Amino acid sequence: MAESWVIMVTAQTPTNIAVIKYWGKRDEKLILPVNDSISVTLDPAHLCTTTTVAVSPSFAQDRMWLNGKEISLSGGRYQNCLREIRARACDVEDKERGIKISKKDWEKLYVHIASYNNFPTAAGLASSAAGFACLVFALAKLMNAKEDNSELSAIARQGSGSACRSLFGGFVKWKMGKVEDGSDSLAVQVVDEKHWDDLVIIIAVVSSRQKETSSTTGMRETVETSLLLQHRAKEIVPKRIVQMEESIKNRNFASFAHLTCADSNQFHAVCMDTCPPIFYMNDTSHRIISCVEKWNRSVGTPQVAYTFDAGPNAVLIAHNRKAAAQLLQKLLFYFPPNSDTELNSYVLGDKSILKDAGIEDLKDVEALPPPPEIKDAPRYKGDVSYFICTRPGQGPVLLSDESQALLSPETGLPK
Amino acid sequence: MAESWVIMVTAQTPTNIAVIKYWGKRDEKLILPVNDSISVTLDPAHLCTTTTVAVSPSFAQDRMWLNGKEISLSGGRYQNCLREIRARACDVEDKERGIKISKKDWEKLYVHIASYNNFPTAAGLASSAAGFACLVFALAKLMNAKEDNSELSAIARQGSGSACRSLFGGFVKWKMGKVEDGSDSLAVQVVDEKHWDDLVIIIAVVSSRQKETSSTTGMRETVETSLLLQHRAKEIVPKRIVQMEESIKNRNFASFAHLTCADSNQFHAVCMDTCPPIFYMNDTSHRIISCVEKWNRSVGTPQVAYTFDAGPNAVLIAHNRKAAAQLLQKLLFYFPPNSDTELNSYVLGDKSILKDAGIEDLKDVEALPPPPEIKDAPRYKGDVSYFICTRPGQGPVLLSDESQALLSPETGLPK
Repeated sequence: MAESWVIMVTAQTPTNIAVIKYWGKRDEKLILPVNDSISVTLDPAHLCTTTTVAVSPSFAQDRMWLNGKEISLSGGRYQNCLREIRARACDVEDKERGIKISKKDWEKLYVHIASYNNFPTAAGLASSAAGFACLVFALAKLMNAKEDNSELSAIARQGSGSACRSLFGGFVKWKMGKVEDGSDSLAVQVVDEKHWDDLVIIIAVVSSRQKETSSTTGMRETVETSLLLQHRAKEIVPKRIVQMEESIKNRNFASFAHLTCADSNQFHAVCMDTCPPIFYMNDTSHRIISCVEKWNRSVGTPQVAYTFDAGPNAVLIAHNRKAAAQLLQKLLFYFPPNSDTELNSYVLGDKSILKDAGIEDLKDVEALPPPPEIKDAPRYKGDVSYFICTRPGQGPVLLSDESQALLSPETGLPK
Repeated sequence: MAESWVIMVTAQTPTNIAVIKYWGKRDEKLILPVNDSISVTLDPAHLCTTTTVAVSPSFAQDRMWLNGKEISLSGGRYQNCLREIRARACDVEDKERGIKISKKDWEKLYVHIASYNNFPTAAGLASSAAGFACLVFALAKLMNAKEDNSELSAIARQGSGSACRSLFGGFVKWKMGKVEDGSDSLAVQVVDEKHWDDLVIIIAVVSSRQKETSSTTGMRETVETSLLLQHRAKEIVPKRIVQMEESIKNRNFASFAHLTCADSNQFHAVCMDTCPPIFYMNDTSHRIISCVEKWNRSVGTPQVAYTFDAGPNAVLIAHNRKAAAQLLQKLLFYFPPNSDTELNSYVLGDKSILKDAGIEDLKDVEALPPPPEIKDAPRYKGDVSYFICTRPGQGPVLLSDESQALLSPETGLPK
């Protein structure tokens, strides 16, 4: 084939953070979980993956570039997603350019994929969730698959479990499903991102010297060795899922915060009950929890919920902008930046929260008063790498502006 | 009464460390646990309480001195122990000195108590366990109570739960009991200290900036809020108790180590599942666990078991002297002393283990090679305060040498 056309689609997909945790698979290959989970989608303005997928008769093989570097697609997780989307491909026609791809052609055509995270990939911020969701969403659009986002989520799930929850904005439930082939293990939206729009999310990216256990390995070992996990999955989580959905629908922050914190702690408890034990949180994580718990208790009603994934980073969900500004003051008191760090690169994302907190420069950080709820509060300079201020956000979108594509429309190679 | 005689008894009682943990009371007042526990008694040569109790008609009230400082006896825990022992007092006669105390006199006589720990009280080394055991044991001897050590353990239990296990040497089981008045919630010896005498115990006293939750408060909050604790207490621990007794009786170190580590981790898991979560271990504790786990796995069979109580200190139980010497080398590699600390005050207790490890001075510590099972092993100078080398030891003993008494035989006041 001497044809040289390239057809491309570019999509942007958010990352998400679970408030009722997914930990443990009942089927390793299909990635079927031992319990339902619920997440909040993070604003893609601050944390998202952008993926361009392209097809051309001139491509000799499937290829992928992640953050500019070519990576192998031979892994089962990528192969699962490519195979499942190809199986759902339909006719595609570009009348203007006189290009027609029929349903059966897709089996013979190769794709190029370029993906870019607008946040550090290695920081433990669920980059694989956003990444696989974006891959599946973009491929589905390129190949004109007719499946809705829930159906696509069951495919993204086979790339990375939590990726299925990134197919929607707002709050999202991953239903564990019942059937053996996994077709009913998919994501549904609980409420969209406008339903509870006064929530503010601050992420503390925590410095760590430790090499962490990957979540794939960690959850396998927990399933194999923890005597508490099955009790959690069967007896505790089902009730929490019902309560969490109620809390979200009613915007009941007290109940939401209680459930979110308790479930994060229980996830880390089952990690510790694993043999050998898995420690994702470190002393800095513990100090952030202590800061939030003491403040919540001193006020009498929860101001902030915390949740931690498979790493030491804290995701803090504040009731509203006022609570978020106060939280940021406390966090910056405890964890001021190293002296060689500028405030502008220490608090990222929605910087208006900084302004609400009355902090314009490092002198303001230095001058912050100790939180009154803690006596002799120490300061832990350098223990946090940076903060990201964000909020609940929308699900996947197509980017029609070709300037945002990551692949060249002529060559199908990275720009 | 112008009589001025003083009758005294001095006893020495070991501390103990649980290998199947006690965490959670079903009766706060009687101190009745939610599950059985098993402990190893530590050699009193290195960790013990010495207590002198005295009675004299000249005493105007019950008084107590702990480590030389007078403390109040008004707390319910002391009152419980004093009341229960007084109720069991019998006739006492010193024919030589012509002193006779009849059973009913004890209700009117006051006691003086002086107690001394041969280890730092605040270091989180179960000083209250040794302390209450010693108090009850010494008072029982003074008052000629006829109860055996198991019966006395049920009284010590009302001072501090884990104290009941310090009435015996070797390995000890605290049976939770069934009856409402708690009379069957007492300790029994599993095996004595000679049964498994090649075990070596190294305690790492870990530096901590954090103020810890007391175990009394912590276990109350766990009982009230953890959704995992009851499952642990009812479904998991009963099986582990049976397996642990078997392992100890058969000196099966692999099984012993597996159960000990798993139960320590599960105890800390239910602490983390508490609301607000309780963190007793810190990054140093985690690093010690990682050091042991990696070594055990690299050898293929467990060399060392670890267990942590309500604080960051590690109690490490080595299979034998050879494993203990290797462990000490690894520990001193990771955690060398601060430059102003001498080796002699950094490794306490049975220093022959140091010699076995080929370490004579700080230069030898500096020259230690990194453990081969870990790549790029970092050193954490100053993160451990000191180490104590010890072994399983005997139960309470009476000290007949009056020079070891803590009270003056003339005045009944601290020497």
